[in-house]
Amino acid sequence: MSDTAVLGTRAPKADAWAKAKGSIIYADDFSMPGMLYGKVLRSPYPAARILSIDTIEAEKLRGVQAVLTAKDVPNNNIRAKFGQSTNIGSQFEGLYRVLAEGKVRFVGEPVALVAAETEKIAEKALELIRVDYDPLPGVFDPIEAMQPGAYPVGESESNLVSHFKVRKGDVDKGFAGADVIVENTYRVPFVDHAYLEPESGVAWLDEDDVVNIRVSTQVIEHFRGVAEVLGIPQNKVRVIGTWLGGGFGGKEDITVESFLALLTVKTRRPVKLTYTREESILAHSKRHPYVMKYKTGATKEGKIIAVEAELVSDAGAYTYLTPWVLLYSAVNAAGPYDIPHVKVDATAVLTNNPFTSANRGFGAIQPNFAYESQVDELARALNMDPLEIRRKNCLRTGGSLATGHTFDGTYVALPEVAEKAWEALGPESSTPEKHKKIGRGLAIGMMSYGRLTFLHDTSRSYVRLELDGSAVIRCGVPDLGGGQASALCHIVAEELGIPLSKIKIYISDTALTPLAGTTTATRQLFMSGNATLKAARELKSRLLKKASELMKVAVEDLIVRDEKIFDNTAPEHFVPLKEVIAVCSSAGEEMFCEAQFNAPFTEVPGSELITGRTFSDFTFGAHAVEVAVDTETGEVEVLKLVSSYDVGKVINRLNVEGQMEGGAVYCLGYALTEELVVEKGITRTPSFSEYLLPTAVDVPDVETVVLESGGGLGPYGAKGIGEPACNSIAPAIINAIRDAVGIRITSLPATPEKVIRALGKM
Amino acid sequence: MSDTAVLGTRAPKADAWAKAKGSIIYADDFSMPGMLYGKVLRSPYPAARILSIDTIEAEKLRGVQAVLTAKDVPNNNIRAKFGQSTNIGSQFEGLYRVLAEGKVRFVGEPVALVAAETEKIAEKALELIRVDYDPLPGVFDPIEAMQPGAYPVGESESNLVSHFKVRKGDVDKGFAGADVIVENTYRVPFVDHAYLEPESGVAWLDEDDVVNIRVSTQVIEHFRGVAEVLGIPQNKVRVIGTWLGGGFGGKEDITVESFLALLTVKTRRPVKLTYTREESILAHSKRHPYVMKYKTGATKEGKIIAVEAELVSDAGAYTYLTPWVLLYSAVNAAGPYDIPHVKVDATAVLTNNPFTSANRGFGAIQPNFAYESQVDELARALNMDPLEIRRKNCLRTGGSLATGHTFDGTYVALPEVAEKAWEALGPESSTPEKHKKIGRGLAIGMMSYGRLTFLHDTSRSYVRLELDGSAVIRCGVPDLGGGQASALCHIVAEELGIPLSKIKIYISDTALTPLAGTTTATRQLFMSGNATLKAARELKSRLLKKASELMKVAVEDLIVRDEKIFDNTAPEHFVPLKEVIAVCSSAGEEMFCEAQFNAPFTEVPGSELITGRTFSDFTFGAHAVEVAVDTETGEVEVLKLVSSYDVGKVINRLNVEGQMEGGAVYCLGYALTEELVVEKGITRTPSFSEYLLPTAVDVPDVETVVLESGGGLGPYGAKGIGEPACNSIAPAIINAIRDAVGIRITSLPATPEKVIRALGKM
Repeated sequence: MSDTAVLGTRAPKADAWAKAKGSIIYADDFSMPGMLYGKVLRSPYPAARILSIDTIEAEKLRGVQAVLTAKDVPNNNIRAKFGQSTNIGSQFEGLYRVLAEGKVRFVGEPVALVAAETEKIAEKALELIRVDYDPLPGVFDPIEAMQPGAYPVGESESNLVSHFKVRKGDVDKGFAGADVIVENTYRVPFVDHAYLEPESGVAWLDEDDVVNIRVSTQVIEHFRGVAEVLGIPQNKVRVIGTWLGGGFGGKEDITVESFLALLTVKTRRPVKLTYTREESILAHSKRHPYVMKYKTGATKEGKIIAVEAELVSDAGAYTYLTPWVLLYSAVNAAGPYDIPHVKVDATAVLTNNPFTSANRGFGAIQPNFAYESQVDELARALNMDPLEIRRKNCLRTGGSLATGHTFDGTYVALPEVAEKAWEALGPESSTPEKHKKIGRGLAIGMMSYGRLTFLHDTSRSYVRLELDGSAVIRCGVPDLGGGQASALCHIVAEELGIPLSKIKIYISDTALTPLAGTTTATRQLFMSGNATLKAARELKSRLLKKASELMKVAVEDLIVRDEKIFDNTAPEHFVPLKEVIAVCSSAGEEMFCEAQFNAPFTEVPGSELITGRTFSDFTFGAHAVEVAVDTETGEVEVLKLVSSYDVGKVINRLNVEGQMEGGAVYCLGYALTEELVVEKGITRTPSFSEYLLPTAVDVPDVETVVLESGGGLGPYGAKGIGEPACNSIAPAIINAIRDAVGIRITSLPATPEKVIRALGKM
Repeated sequence: MSDTAVLGTRAPKADAWAKAKGSIIYADDFSMPGMLYGKVLRSPYPAARILSIDTIEAEKLRGVQAVLTAKDVPNNNIRAKFGQSTNIGSQFEGLYRVLAEGKVRFVGEPVALVAAETEKIAEKALELIRVDYDPLPGVFDPIEAMQPGAYPVGESESNLVSHFKVRKGDVDKGFAGADVIVENTYRVPFVDHAYLEPESGVAWLDEDDVVNIRVSTQVIEHFRGVAEVLGIPQNKVRVIGTWLGGGFGGKEDITVESFLALLTVKTRRPVKLTYTREESILAHSKRHPYVMKYKTGATKEGKIIAVEAELVSDAGAYTYLTPWVLLYSAVNAAGPYDIPHVKVDATAVLTNNPFTSANRGFGAIQPNFAYESQVDELARALNMDPLEIRRKNCLRTGGSLATGHTFDGTYVALPEVAEKAWEALGPESSTPEKHKKIGRGLAIGMMSYGRLTFLHDTSRSYVRLELDGSAVIRCGVPDLGGGQASALCHIVAEELGIPLSKIKIYISDTALTPLAGTTTATRQLFMSGNATLKAARELKSRLLKKASELMKVAVEDLIVRDEKIFDNTAPEHFVPLKEVIAVCSSAGEEMFCEAQFNAPFTEVPGSELITGRTFSDFTFGAHAVEVAVDTETGEVEVLKLVSSYDVGKVINRLNVEGQMEGGAVYCLGYALTEELVVEKGITRTPSFSEYLLPTAVDVPDVETVVLESGGGLGPYGAKGIGEPACNSIAPAIINAIRDAVGIRITSLPATPEKVIRALGKM
């Protein structure tokens, strides 16, 4: 009899073959008869008053079917929905407008919408819309925007979005006892998600005038937001998520959905709207730039005793998910260390820059760069090994964060992940080129999987057994390419002894699949995985009960494997699974189950002081890198990159490795090349020829070290890996540069220019 | 506070507006990029051996993408699936072939399939396929086909399909005590379903190579049959049912599904296949012609004491659902009368005629014509009023059928329905034209709603509440235009106090909606209505529990109405429904429910003797008509038509009235005009210019009398009305002709020619 055949094996993702063959119907690939094309008129100013909008000429253009402005939007001022909960205090609500009203706040802000018979006509119509603007001064620096009397970005006088703080012990006392104190200010830039597939969708009305929106999204639950925009019941909007060509947080907020809905309701025809690459870069959300002032103190023995951190986040022109990102930063600011004295202040402010919102790493990745740079500097000041200082200070199972979250029910894989990463680097490389210096860096990281506990997160999944022993899963999970869907297939295969080839999953449809919540926050394996496991186990228990009757064997002695139910005490004694299913069905037994999984719940924080178990759990990992720094050009080449994580339990090994490799590559750019250059609110890098992504030649082989502690809250003890996988790459690289050439880069990315300047050669 | 606002009201069906506006996307309206067109090559012979099939020339034709014959079908010999059960004995299995193999058995039998870039090319390709046939004698008369040595239609020597019998008392003894005996042989013809929308569908492969079939069908569960044909797991076939342009049983069997699946798997492209009207008439199923020999005896007081019936059914060339139709006939053969001595023999045989299968009235409608003609003749022989003889003999609550099925838990609305029908005719019409004679006829009828109890019928339905208090229903019910979907909306509206405008239903998708079983056997209100009611009540109980906590009012004192939960003892005290939903959601309460309803189950009959509770329940009704018979032309005009039924409880009044009116019109044709003329296996009426449907001018106003006994097994005590509504129209009309001009028509339809012959004028 075979062992558990499925868990931990490598299996292609549900969408792998189709993507390889090119047969996936991405959002923009989909068309409908009589379909119109939508386009968005956008603000050329970062700050200006709209004096008038004249759409008459555009409306007159032959082939134009609709021209809409803010006055045509039933509800134009919208809260950015963060998950499914409804009882969250207003301090957490991101706001935005569907179309600009009164004044524009950033370059690229949507001002008007057009639907026309062809894209060309729609573009021509945009040119015919006359908007009179009165330019306003604006404010572009978050520190400046915080000052009294600063230009007000929105309607309120203050640009303050949110402030959160974490307090533990007494930092003054801590620093007084420190032998070494390191102080630095770190900066991280605006970053684009740079997915291959830009924002896109098609909308149409069905026979009941339900607005259907087929869209590339991480959050099909935006059907609620669209219903609010349109002022219609929620069940009259259906969002169908496509297989995504990447999301990375950029498709967490509404993108084209409201525009499509407004245009299709107005014209009563299908409408397609796909952003150009320039629109995607200019006008949709970015990762938040932060200014992070850190002061870290340690004893001469290397014990870190105090951290003080002030984080300032640039929210850009609308709040969107800024409060939530900031909350993550506050909780993560001191990193996975057990430090007696911690003081964190995190503040987000509006500016007239591009708006910022979710991006893989969601508020955890920015302070990770800062605190791991600090720890590295402390180690150097104390002449300690980078692994040693982390061993000495890192969090361990049973320990707690500065917020008071105690790790007593889940596993903290520190310092193991760091040890394994460091060890895996192997013997040091050499280089024949004298002007190239080799260096090594280590960084550890932590990031939550699953949403904030006070959001009362839930997911649902449905499993149905067919009469021939095959199975169907339905789950509203959007699949970003991260293998979200395939992990659920693995779970059902494992539990019910059905081969993967006989499992079919349907995902991402608000009308027809169970609502599984957002594919964000590294939550789907945890949440929908557990919901799927619960459903599969419920079915299994019904099957075993019936098999027990049929076989006259106690339920405890039965196991399900290889499409059969075996008597574990006499393995030659079995019944085929499909026979048991047939008997159950004929007896009126329900051969389906939709199960709901509820994450741990806590109360909503009553103040800006963040305490307690804000997240269900965290994933811990480390990156170790070896770089070669060219002292003549400032170029940094990553020679080796080890990604080491405790994932709790591997479900589909290909998914885990894929996330770790992808995460590493995603943040290689964060460390070395990627920066959205924004000057006075104007993006100077509006294409991939200016905004520099790592290319295939820049990417080293990523060595993955996968630990399976079994100590997570996901199915079979799994933890999430999607977002955690990109933490700690940037600081590991920066620390390696420091190791190679003795310079401390405090501002990402470490471009050749910055390196060469730091080396005093420019 | 308003009363129960929804139940029994008239509301447009879910699809009404869209159908009226022409925006429903019927099966043939749907297209896909890169779609091919399928065509079927059909046999021109009723019986012939296939010597060879040469497809080379057809394959060579530019634009032809596939030519398939029987050898290309993985499983070509298929059981016609009747419902979802798997444990039914082989005596009930209808067999058919996907494509002819060895020999052809009827004119129109599919022999080969073609898929090509255009319909024209596909038609041209059909012409290029060379089939060499060796014609065989065939057999066309069912009585002849029963004789030893008759031409064998199929592979077996005998043409017998099934034989069922019902026995009660001792008919010989019964007839010995009878004062009057009436004997007659009745005949009913082949009848076409004559839906506006012919058989049609589109198939395509999805990213996992799942075969998707969007098709006009009453039975989306044919995904199982298609999987069997293709030899793939059941979860790799998805059937999406469209809103139908009529079904009437003709879309109960597989129509285009297997053809589409084979062609799309072969070509890996979407394929559309729509039958021409001629194909629909020639090559798809028909209602069974019967020869029915009846002998009925009564005492001089009018008490019917014995019935002997021999029914012979022409199955045509393949069995399909013939055994089931025959079983219905056996159970219904003596009608809704309490008769001490009954002997029924029902036999079905294969011939080389068009194959016959389900048609609205499914085996109940044929004997209804016979037994109600017999009762009318008895009344005349005894000089009794037609109502009086029925009053004297009809079944009543607590009574039982000849099979032993006792009506103790459900209501028998006899003789009420007959009394009301007869009364509703009002004063007799007069005619100034001397050659036109006025007459009146009455007939009663019974028909089951819901499937045979030994089929262990089940249905499932899903209800989800949105955060704004709107609701989504998902149910795999195909909607034939009978309002199946809208009834479910009514039930949720009634139970949960949600207006119909805030309820959206998604139907008929095997992958994404709960399997609700077939829309046949008048089962959907009973089965899916009860499943929906169960789901709604489960949600209601969760809401009331939470509301009870919030309001501090006992659950028993709470009522749900008008989107609020009220304290029934203090109606000014309420909470909005959406508030309770939001609180429940945040507490992790499941705001969805998929419920399964199981019909009463019995064991499968072990022999051809049919006894006991074969059906869950029956619907009882009556028709009363007044006709004018033109004694010069033989034309019969229906002046008045009353349809009177106990529907148990009205859910949507428009649906009930629509079914009763539609049923009457459907069988007006059965009585007077419709006959598929088949001579030696060749259909002589292959279009609607030869096959005569009643037109608008032929149809009288139908007066509907709706009783609500509350004594059914459906939701709120409802009974089914879809098929029962067309029983007893034909005998009522035939009895009225007898009343008008003294002739007994024993063979449907009563065409002018037949009438005039019977009057001795031809």
